[in-house]
Amino acid sequence: MDQVKVIEIKKSVFAENEKDADALRSELKSKGVYLLNLMSSPGSGKTTTLIQLINRIKDKVRVAVMEADIDSDVDAVKIKEQTGVQSIQLHTGGMCHLDAEMTRQGLGGLDLEQTDLVILENVGNLVCPAEFDTGSVRNAMILSVPEGTDKPLKYPLMFSVCDLVIVNKIDVMPYFDFDLEKCREYVHMRNPRAELIPICAKTGEGVDAVAEWILREVRNWK
Amino acid sequence: MDQVKVIEIKKSVFAENEKDADALRSELKSKGVYLLNLMSSPGSGKTTTLIQLINRIKDKVRVAVMEADIDSDVDAVKIKEQTGVQSIQLHTGGMCHLDAEMTRQGLGGLDLEQTDLVILENVGNLVCPAEFDTGSVRNAMILSVPEGTDKPLKYPLMFSVCDLVIVNKIDVMPYFDFDLEKCREYVHMRNPRAELIPICAKTGEGVDAVAEWILREVRNWK
Repeated sequence: MDQVKVIEIKKSVFAENEKDADALRSELKSKGVYLLNLMSSPGSGKTTTLIQLINRIKDKVRVAVMEADIDSDVDAVKIKEQTGVQSIQLHTGGMCHLDAEMTRQGLGGLDLEQTDLVILENVGNLVCPAEFDTGSVRNAMILSVPEGTDKPLKYPLMFSVCDLVIVNKIDVMPYFDFDLEKCREYVHMRNPRAELIPICAKTGEGVDAVAEWILREVRNWK
Repeated sequence: MDQVKVIEIKKSVFAENEKDADALRSELKSKGVYLLNLMSSPGSGKTTTLIQLINRIKDKVRVAVMEADIDSDVDAVKIKEQTGVQSIQLHTGGMCHLDAEMTRQGLGGLDLEQTDLVILENVGNLVCPAEFDTGSVRNAMILSVPEGTDKPLKYPLMFSVCDLVIVNKIDVMPYFDFDLEKCREYVHMRNPRAELIPICAKTGEGVDAVAEWILREVRNWK
């Protein structure tokens, strides 16, 4: 099995996360590094989605991944083995989210000179990560079909802060009471500008549209 | 649609949650009220499981439910309509967990004289709720098949504090790479005493075993 770098993240000392996030965003802008913050519930398929996505874009942009988890490094290893891009593991030591300073600690473990796009896979949690600006250019989230149509009603802040909602596991739609149009309506109640892209990460269906979204994002931002 | 009581939970003022949780446990013991804390990811099927469970036990114990959510009261309404038992909604106002004092605020909205068993449906989150003792006699959690076998590796504390792990949505096992025996092994790495019960809340399969577990619990505790 591949070895990956594991970084033990320390609690932030900065009280003003918003200012710190803005500062980090400027630093990254000056280095030409686009940061995407990807959030979701546990088990929504973030890592599988990332593998499919990265293999579609890695010839066009230089991608690196930071996998935040309370424990274990299985995700970072998988990403490295199945895409070959830079991949590091961040251990939050029980902390339920990342803020800008914690994200900065993680970025210190990457070679940013060789990177155009960093994707941060945040801790699996629909509550806390939504409250902390990581310094990313955009927030995206994955909602998987088995979780149900009503999640934007129950976790309003998460859906308010995300510009992209990837609806994963659409292959099992027939086995769940999931209403895609209703979901779209609820997502737009929280953020009218949010884009919704249905995919099946297992088969790769729909992932091309996610790849186009992120490539367009990085291009327009440069 | 039924109306349910909604309680806006305030942030706790007590610094020492563990002491407070012990105090609440004693108070409830003296009143003969058993408190079960039920946790899970968003969308694991907590409410559907509760409806199936309550309809199997409500003639044997007097049940009341507290539904904690950041927003919305859809779950408490569903429980009331489909089981007829006391059901109230707790709004956490963005907070990602309940501690003992917050639980006490919720209990104030129930008629405890008429109650043997209170089930607290905690906020959908595998991280923060595990860190706070609510004053419950036992913690239980629901892991749904689509979330994946590896969750006890990624969310160790949650599985360490739970004495019952309900594995829900076993009807869709053929469509997911879920290994029940591997899952049992991982769960027991975290808590060797934990009981694991596979169910399908949608059809009711396996829920009798959960009903037996909770009835035995309440009986032995009295």
